[in-house]
Amino acid sequence: MFIEGKNAIRQALEGGSTINKVMVDKNYQSRKDEIIALAAKNKVKVEFLPKIALDKHSKTGHHQGYIAETVEFEYCTIEDILNVSKDKGTNPFIVLLDGIEDPHNFGAIIRSCECAGVDGIIIAKNRACQVNETVIRTSTGAITNVKIAKVTNLKDAISMLKENDVWVFAAEAGGEQIYNRNLSIPVALVIGSEGFGVKKTVIASCDGVVSLPLMGKVNSLNASVACGICVFEVVRQRATK
Amino acid sequence: MFIEGKNAIRQALEGGSTINKVMVDKNYQSRKDEIIALAAKNKVKVEFLPKIALDKHSKTGHHQGYIAETVEFEYCTIEDILNVSKDKGTNPFIVLLDGIEDPHNFGAIIRSCECAGVDGIIIAKNRACQVNETVIRTSTGAITNVKIAKVTNLKDAISMLKENDVWVFAAEAGGEQIYNRNLSIPVALVIGSEGFGVKKTVIASCDGVVSLPLMGKVNSLNASVACGICVFEVVRQRATK
Repeated sequence: MFIEGKNAIRQALEGGSTINKVMVDKNYQSRKDEIIALAAKNKVKVEFLPKIALDKHSKTGHHQGYIAETVEFEYCTIEDILNVSKDKGTNPFIVLLDGIEDPHNFGAIIRSCECAGVDGIIIAKNRACQVNETVIRTSTGAITNVKIAKVTNLKDAISMLKENDVWVFAAEAGGEQIYNRNLSIPVALVIGSEGFGVKKTVIASCDGVVSLPLMGKVNSLNASVACGICVFEVVRQRATK
Repeated sequence: MFIEGKNAIRQALEGGSTINKVMVDKNYQSRKDEIIALAAKNKVKVEFLPKIALDKHSKTGHHQGYIAETVEFEYCTIEDILNVSKDKGTNPFIVLLDGIEDPHNFGAIIRSCECAGVDGIIIAKNRACQVNETVIRTSTGAITNVKIAKVTNLKDAISMLKENDVWVFAAEAGGEQIYNRNLSIPVALVIGSEGFGVKKTVIASCDGVVSLPLMGKVNSLNASVACGICVFEVVRQRATK
């Protein structure tokens, strides 16, 4: 798998991702170059190539002169995610994604979750965007700090979270206003897909539905913005408790 | 100017945008087609064209068989935006954008602001994304419900807001935690650009800086997500006051 762009590679190198090598535009060959210095510090091989060779490797077309080759993304298990809060001594804070398909939305969600201190994200194996180059790039490196578990069935994952004393709420229209719901407890939020929201069968497995008050006529937020607002409501409640 | 895609055109038709005509893939010619019916109801001319002709008109490549031709986007004045809250009898709630360059971010911000019931958005004439087809499409029609003013100088706009008893806060790192600041008062939030945040000279004109607590290592949210979280903090405070 490849990571492209200066910021994403810097974050990956600093976050301790397993990088095989970094390919750099040979015009940038200098000991003062930040990425080259970071790669050296982390004992990662650097290859200097003409820009045209980088263009060939690039899948996004936005490599900015830097492409890193990583080992395949390693998904974790739900247990791994539950262990994060155990280790930190905090209440669990987990996000489940029900069918997010757009890699830019998925990447932006990872970035927001990292900023909100989410323990981990759970996605479904099928009919959902998986971790790919675009996701990694859009996450601007946040992916190296957030655990992601891939499960066959979201409903089974929700059952397992409930067995571990986590309360699971779907973020969806028509529920209780999110500001009135105590989210300082061990909590998981289910974020729905761009077109269809959280599936009814998934909502049925949850402990409840929390909603943002929408004051306009369009009445639907972008999925990654909605996720950002909801996870930061958890941050707010925990910070001001 | 053109609006592309079924949802964006539906919103524009329902929102009362001035549309000259709607071009529809001739394979979709049916009285039951939602867009065709809406156009007829609004007395907007419908032109049936082969898909290849729509492809030629399309700037985004995602027309889904529907392209609407509108009159040029009409910016409003700051006075128009101040009149919105006067008419509603609410406290002013305004967003200023300091150098947002990405049309997808701008469109997503318009969408979030519409959902949050923001009175209007103020942008700068130079070095900032203007309203274009991508912005309109990304806003999924929200643009027809949100006033947008274009000004030569953001600092002059801030002075004018202050003269009208509006408190202006920059959303930027290193300030007071946003949750501790009373935002039920007449308020304007300044959202910074993707790469550089709010300019120091602009911050100096503001009444203060409000910040989101960032719990991760990456420590920077996408500009449109940050805007969404901040405007919904205003919504929360006003809803729960």
